[in-house]
Amino acid sequence: MSGFIQNAWYVAAWAHEVPADGLFARTVIGEPLLLYRTASDEVVALEDRCCHRQAPLSRGRKEGDCVRCGYHGLKFDRHGICVEVPGMEAVPPKACVRSFPVVVHNKWIFVWMGDSTKADPALLPDTFSNDHPEWRYLPGYLHYETPYELIADNLLDFSHLSYVHAATLGGSEQIAQIRPKVERIERGIHVQRWVPNVPPPAYYQPLWDYGGLVDRWIEYEFILPATLLMHSGASPAGAARDDNRTGIRFHSCQALTPESAHSTHYFFQESHHATQGDAGTTQGLYEGLLAAFEEDRQMITAQWRSMSLKPDVPMLPLHMDAALTLFRRLVMQVLVEESNCKDSA
Amino acid sequence: MSGFIQNAWYVAAWAHEVPADGLFARTVIGEPLLLYRTASDEVVALEDRCCHRQAPLSRGRKEGDCVRCGYHGLKFDRHGICVEVPGMEAVPPKACVRSFPVVVHNKWIFVWMGDSTKADPALLPDTFSNDHPEWRYLPGYLHYETPYELIADNLLDFSHLSYVHAATLGGSEQIAQIRPKVERIERGIHVQRWVPNVPPPAYYQPLWDYGGLVDRWIEYEFILPATLLMHSGASPAGAARDDNRTGIRFHSCQALTPESAHSTHYFFQESHHATQGDAGTTQGLYEGLLAAFEEDRQMITAQWRSMSLKPDVPMLPLHMDAALTLFRRLVMQVLVEESNCKDSA
Amino acid sequence: MSGFIQNAWYVAAWAHEVPADGLFARTVIGEPLLLYRTASDEVVALEDRCCHRQAPLSRGRKEGDCVRCGYHGLKFDRHGICVEVPGMEAVPPKACVRSFPVVVHNKWIFVWMGDSTKADPALLPDTFSNDHPEWRYLPGYLHYETPYELIADNLLDFSHLSYVHAATLGGSEQIAQIRPKVERIERGIHVQRWVPNVPPPAYYQPLWDYGGLVDRWIEYEFILPATLLMHSGASPAGAARDDNRTGIRFHSCQALTPESAHSTHYFFQESHHATQGDAGTTQGLYEGLLAAFEEDRQMITAQWRSMSLKPDVPMLPLHMDAALTLFRRLVMQVLVEESNCKDSA
Repeated sequence: MSGFIQNAWYVAAWAHEVPADGLFARTVIGEPLLLYRTASDEVVALEDRCCHRQAPLSRGRKEGDCVRCGYHGLKFDRHGICVEVPGMEAVPPKACVRSFPVVVHNKWIFVWMGDSTKADPALLPDTFSNDHPEWRYLPGYLHYETPYELIADNLLDFSHLSYVHAATLGGSEQIAQIRPKVERIERGIHVQRWVPNVPPPAYYQPLWDYGGLVDRWIEYEFILPATLLMHSGASPAGAARDDNRTGIRFHSCQALTPESAHSTHYFFQESHHATQGDAGTTQGLYEGLLAAFEEDRQMITAQWRSMSLKPDVPMLPLHMDAALTLFRRLVMQVLVEESNCKDSA
Repeated sequence: MSGFIQNAWYVAAWAHEVPADGLFARTVIGEPLLLYRTASDEVVALEDRCCHRQAPLSRGRKEGDCVRCGYHGLKFDRHGICVEVPGMEAVPPKACVRSFPVVVHNKWIFVWMGDSTKADPALLPDTFSNDHPEWRYLPGYLHYETPYELIADNLLDFSHLSYVHAATLGGSEQIAQIRPKVERIERGIHVQRWVPNVPPPAYYQPLWDYGGLVDRWIEYEFILPATLLMHSGASPAGAARDDNRTGIRFHSCQALTPESAHSTHYFFQESHHATQGDAGTTQGLYEGLLAAFEEDRQMITAQWRSMSLKPDVPMLPLHMDAALTLFRRLVMQVLVEESNCKDSA
Repeated sequence: MSGFIQNAWYVAAWAHEVPADGLFARTVIGEPLLLYRTASDEVVALEDRCCHRQAPLSRGRKEGDCVRCGYHGLKFDRHGICVEVPGMEAVPPKACVRSFPVVVHNKWIFVWMGDSTKADPALLPDTFSNDHPEWRYLPGYLHYETPYELIADNLLDFSHLSYVHAATLGGSEQIAQIRPKVERIERGIHVQRWVPNVPPPAYYQPLWDYGGLVDRWIEYEFILPATLLMHSGASPAGAARDDNRTGIRFHSCQALTPESAHSTHYFFQESHHATQGDAGTTQGLYEGLLAAFEEDRQMITAQWRSMSLKPDVPMLPLHMDAALTLFRRLVMQVLVEESNCKDSA
């Protein structure tokens, strides 16, 4: 049984990371990938390892819609088929590298790492705010030297806002006091948290300089393989929710892509409504989010060091672990299913 | 059988390292510890690992005499008992972290890592010069990336003064030529070395600018777990020993605390008599000691690299290994005893 | 079966690296060596690990033709025999470190790592240009964090000049198109490559500012353990070969010495004919060579990372691998022979 779900769309990059010309390398669930764009702007994802001597193809060069290995010159087309070996008339039939289904969807480049016949675009997450005129953001990326599971745990229990993010996203111990509503949904978990009558967090400042108490809400789906889709916002305490004139709203898309068993790519954005604020607001919110996410990274990295030192120490399950426990169970189910499929195949 | 003696007082820190407010982290024999002070200035030592998700408690904050985890807000009292879980009425009985007996004794904070019912202050070493009006020093700390055993070996055979410290603490090959008197004592080894008619070492300069030959003496106990208590000094050759008017005297306390199987905390001071010299003298001697201890660190680290490259190469026992061989045997005895106790328990 | 051939001359250093006074340390096939010169300028190679407590002898000091350990003062003669233990009348007979046969031959210091009775100077490679009035060069050294085998592969297939070194040593895809002549020779492989009618590579510039097409030739032996001896050059297309008045000639000596199973010392020089150019030419060619060898190092290091990530991925053999496959087979034969000798001994 592999440690990662295979049959899923993983975010490999923000669309702007892969240039019109040139080659881009990123490792996804342990597999080094080469990403590049064709003349017609389609994104190609190939195994980043020449079949000849295993040099990374990303150290070679693009030739039209093909890539040529920078070591001994083998040339591969966009499907990974070798179309030229220098000094040979005919290319050996075995000369090829694996290619992966790719979809560019709302500014994220998704790759399908498992059985390509199962690559179904209907499984792509609804990341609408990534590419929508009503929403504005700056794109974020962080690299973690921890397993993705610990970051997923973090995103599935927002009680940590009260402690990790006291000075940024949190601002009140009330957040941790309140029990969220947690539900199983298709391929994931749905979480709702309603926090009435709390001071607004420092994070709101660039967008909303409100001094009184507010009602806050946080609602999100966390779906396989590890994507968060979240509505959140605040209104003056007691006022109507979701009213742009009196309160604020955010939509956030976040995706965790395991790089290896102990390192992770983290793609994220949190959009504010385009009718509110200007470019400076967007920049200010982005910087606030980065600062908060760095707080998470410090804590989770310290947690991982602690776990690595004594891997056999058990964790004590508490009420706030409801969503993360459900999600870990869901991942385990899918891993077992994928393992059974492979065994019976 | 654990690699470390459990039932012993280990130096965890110099007293000044643990602030009146705030949290201090240090790992002792593989166990991450959180140290802090209560309002009544008692030092607390807790397992630095929240029982919930294993985040280090040292990344949290002090609240009165309690500590609150910085991840999800569990609050622990000075005994390690969880007294609050945000969002829960009752705290689960299993919610606690281990606490360790602590004694602050002559400026060193000692922790007892084994069975706390056996934590006997009578076993604390006589580190009188750490806190005595007749003695003056500056406190030293070094971190080693080697097992503590190799540093103990070094301290149990001062023949190395002639070679490692030729330009600092040594100054004569005579030191290595002379056989010390080595005796087993209660929980340790007693070593005496009398070196007549040698040039004074450069190390003496800040305190004693004597140009002629001197008689030197070095006498110490090295006791479990790994503490050195040493009287040393020099007089003009042939003159009476221990006379502050004509010669010099030092008292040194040094303690090795394993951090892990291959890294070590080294706490040390070498005091001169308060009637001799001023603050500049103390500073000068401290700098000389640091320079010499850095010579040890370089050599022992190189030795460890050499051993790591070929772990199976045997060592050739020689006469100068008498004390260190005795001490290693003593440690092994205690490890076996502790292991038997555990098995029969 | 050891991973390295034992009975062979390995280059341990350029002669100028080992000073007239002082000690020099280098690890060869996993064995730390101490190198130094006697009063009569002979080079000594000893195991760099004191038999007492395994401190590296290279941290000690030279005393006449002996070396004294810097830890506890054991003194060893040039044959590795301990001749003094401080404080002991008689030296224990077991007190010695291994010594290795050494030959300084054409500016390279060779050590014999296996059975010293088999150390035959007739097996030294013909590195004449390393020390010849008709040839000029600057000595090169690189450290690789990869197994030596991958660098040997690189040197046994110059088709990579077209791709790795397009802007330095290569300059034409023709080099890769042409099949070299590959032959087994005594203890190695002979490779010839004739490349007519190509643009001259940028590398020639400091020596030969020729604008037209040229004929190039590359001829080398690659012999055990891992030494390249190469003639190469170029003439105006169609002109006579090896004519210093109209074209250029190089002779190159390169040696790979494994440091460990995954790191390598690389010694090299490429000489130009002394009748051509001046010191600036020699410097310019050296810098060009370094730039090109850095291109190799980047590629081979990336290849090694790729292989380390998935050690079980097979390589696809192609026609250009003829020489390297032959050489790997030859190495394997010798390893098996050495293993059988040991078993029957």
